[in-house]
Amino acid sequence: MSFDPATLKYDANGLIPAIAQDELSGEVLMMAWMNAEAVTKTLNNGRVTYWSRSRQAFWVKGESSGHLQHLVDFRVDCDRDCLLIIVRQTGPACHTNRRSCFYTAVRNGDEVELMAPEA
Amino acid sequence: MSFDPATLKYDANGLIPAIAQDELSGEVLMMAWMNAEAVTKTLNNGRVTYWSRSRQAFWVKGESSGHLQHLVDFRVDCDRDCLLIIVRQTGPACHTNRRSCFYTAVRNGDEVELMAPEA
Repeated sequence: MSFDPATLKYDANGLIPAIAQDELSGEVLMMAWMNAEAVTKTLNNGRVTYWSRSRQAFWVKGESSGHLQHLVDFRVDCDRDCLLIIVRQTGPACHTNRRSCFYTAVRNGDEVELMAPEA
Repeated sequence: MSFDPATLKYDANGLIPAIAQDELSGEVLMMAWMNAEAVTKTLNNGRVTYWSRSRQAFWVKGESSGHLQHLVDFRVDCDRDCLLIIVRQTGPACHTNRRSCFYTAVRNGDEVELMAPEA
């Protein structure tokens, strides 16, 4: 069946959450948002492109930092309201220079930092 | 540092997205939503509890299906507006009886089904 980005379910702001997962380690790197045009751009050129809610603009991941995400596989969930993007990640995914944005764990009621910024 | 669920950033509906990842396979199983009380319940009793937007009620994952999610690790992202829940999943995570909700891939413009419902 041919895929049409318009068949995804977007929220009231026209956005859908997109989870980025590293193709090799399986690590969940980040979650950001796409609109229908960002979905199309990502599929067409293989550079993962989000919609920045703070800047209200397209956000080609790594365009300024060099920490690009290359699309490896694009997945849609059962409700068509969430995306899983398998990526080849160059450098750290997080703006704090950590490999993943999910570097804080909650264990026994305390916050624990799991990874340091890369050099 | 002690963790307080009130320090997370919830959306206008008081919800935060929570990604569930299988502890063993690393597979991303599903994404659903929590409110502050669901976060507290999940941390307190180790049974992953979401907030059902359709039913407007707490949703202890697997309570009716038996496909429970046991909390293994609870992670917060850099912006504190997304959660990653590492889980021990009993049975399929998806209501379609598939292991993961992300069973549809988009490849060369077509939708491809990656896994079948479990028996």
